[in-house]
Amino acid sequence: MGNGDEVQNKQVIFRDYVSGLPKESDLVVNTGTIELKVPEGSKAVLLKNLYLSCDPSMGVRMKKLPDSASYFPSFRPGSPLYGFGVAKVLDSGHPDFKAGDLVCGLTGWEEYSLIQDSGRVGMLKKVQFTDVPLSYYIGILGMPGLTAYVGFYEICAPKKGEYVFVSAASGAIGQLVGQFAKLMGCYVVGSASSNEKIDLLKNKLGFDEAFNYKEEQNLAVALKRYFPEGIDIYFENVGGKMLDAVLSNMRLHGRIAVCGMISQYHNLDEPEGVHNLMSFIVKRIRMEGFVVSDYFHLFPKFLELMREHIKEGKLVYVEDIYEGLENAPAALVGLFHGKNIGKQVVLVSKE
Amino acid sequence: MGNGDEVQNKQVIFRDYVSGLPKESDLVVNTGTIELKVPEGSKAVLLKNLYLSCDPSMGVRMKKLPDSASYFPSFRPGSPLYGFGVAKVLDSGHPDFKAGDLVCGLTGWEEYSLIQDSGRVGMLKKVQFTDVPLSYYIGILGMPGLTAYVGFYEICAPKKGEYVFVSAASGAIGQLVGQFAKLMGCYVVGSASSNEKIDLLKNKLGFDEAFNYKEEQNLAVALKRYFPEGIDIYFENVGGKMLDAVLSNMRLHGRIAVCGMISQYHNLDEPEGVHNLMSFIVKRIRMEGFVVSDYFHLFPKFLELMREHIKEGKLVYVEDIYEGLENAPAALVGLFHGKNIGKQVVLVSKE
Repeated sequence: MGNGDEVQNKQVIFRDYVSGLPKESDLVVNTGTIELKVPEGSKAVLLKNLYLSCDPSMGVRMKKLPDSASYFPSFRPGSPLYGFGVAKVLDSGHPDFKAGDLVCGLTGWEEYSLIQDSGRVGMLKKVQFTDVPLSYYIGILGMPGLTAYVGFYEICAPKKGEYVFVSAASGAIGQLVGQFAKLMGCYVVGSASSNEKIDLLKNKLGFDEAFNYKEEQNLAVALKRYFPEGIDIYFENVGGKMLDAVLSNMRLHGRIAVCGMISQYHNLDEPEGVHNLMSFIVKRIRMEGFVVSDYFHLFPKFLELMREHIKEGKLVYVEDIYEGLENAPAALVGLFHGKNIGKQVVLVSKE
Repeated sequence: MGNGDEVQNKQVIFRDYVSGLPKESDLVVNTGTIELKVPEGSKAVLLKNLYLSCDPSMGVRMKKLPDSASYFPSFRPGSPLYGFGVAKVLDSGHPDFKAGDLVCGLTGWEEYSLIQDSGRVGMLKKVQFTDVPLSYYIGILGMPGLTAYVGFYEICAPKKGEYVFVSAASGAIGQLVGQFAKLMGCYVVGSASSNEKIDLLKNKLGFDEAFNYKEEQNLAVALKRYFPEGIDIYFENVGGKMLDAVLSNMRLHGRIAVCGMISQYHNLDEPEGVHNLMSFIVKRIRMEGFVVSDYFHLFPKFLELMREHIKEGKLVYVEDIYEGLENAPAALVGLFHGKNIGKQVVLVSKE
């Protein structure tokens, strides 16, 4: 090992596999120690974590699943959580990084992370522009942004004037899909879980309409109200009953991009049945699931477009930032109860 | 009216809307009369029907449904059924047809049909080649053939060496999908409802493997046995439990062409739930429903390819022919119980 200073390192430890919805007690904040140097001769990178991303898929990774059942492996009990984050390089044995660099990529839920795995070091990307909030690199300029971009533009192939519906519309991804739809000249409606979110969608994010699905007796009837002529494009974030209601309201040649099914993550062993699949034939529907990591090659083009749009004020981004690692369990668990207003972020340290 | 001879005309009359599976008693064979001349000055065509097609979608059309719920309107109680057929023109007021022409298109379930509706006259196509059985024009060279062609080549975009699964594999469409898959260099497995059909699939139609789904306790386990590496392409004819089992066995970037869901036609008000939709994300699945009438522009290219393949012995076609209109109700109803071995046809008259 090197001969750097040993310091305290607060960590969010994953206790054990969960069934059902994750609870705060499934995580524990501990303090260990870490040496602020990479091992002599290694190509490791030592990071000071600044912002951590709370992603719905992390709920799936807290379950014990065969690797084949998800596109990410399960977390390891007794180890810190990990996910996307923005960090500052404190020390580096890797030629691509030097102390002081700002990077984004997969990192641990802790104050400092030693990234030794060459695959994970390879995924770190230097932050190119600092004229935007650094947290944007795990949001609008990170995976959620690229996911919205790929799902809407690549999978749905939207056309001007089409009718677009987005569920979980005020979340990290949905809020961007809605704004993309408006930029494309579509009519867009979002659903969310509180009237505060509905207000945000209509009055800040530019959705044409929005509704609180918790106040609707019958989702199919609600959708019919907002889409009397039917839905051309559905950006699917929730699954279950909402998907069923959408299927009965699709237009001819409608497209569904399946980004997530958060309503099903708490009970993967017995997911809800979806019934209205005959619509696939009658309405010639195309539905496609996608995972953003298959589209990393589009990142440069995406980043350029997004910076331009942000600069011109054509896109805004709403974040829900919890300060301090000790609040990270509440931030993550809140996601599964729809507590977050916008992209859920944990601020570990400002620099 | 003209002054032709009036003759007897046996007809298969649709009694009334059905719920559940159609029964033979929902149809009745009556004898009316018809004048063998088109009305003076009209552009109608008078047909002598030779072969009639039994299609699973006719079961749906025997239910009372809003027009928007299906891609064909419901049959009219008290009127003859109608569907695709091959017929001889006896008289014509339309410049495109003359007495003696052989045609295929939508016609009535009766000995003679007066086609007056200009849309339906416009859909009649002259039979170009008589070096194949005339019944082929409602099977391998008709809608079932074009459906198999479109679903497999256009929707599934198959590649050599891929793993293909076809349900209802010995039916009018499935038997062709399996043969197309072999021509493409794919591995193909079919499911069907009897051991006689399994034998046909393996020993006459060239499927690599086939299984009787009625003898399987667990469809997902059965599919795993035949596809240890998973399914690239699923040609969906049945829906329900089979679709669920397939979803849990798909490979990365798998494609599903939804042609029909015959297992659901008897209970459209309460279709079965399909649960394994998370596979869409994990496996990046694309599923697309299609209706052959959207692809009529491909017909000439399709017809040329099929004739060549038939001539070269690369394609065979199995038909199940019932003779006589009085047997037409049994032929149609048998389809919903899987009684047919191959394409179900009613022979009305040989010429």
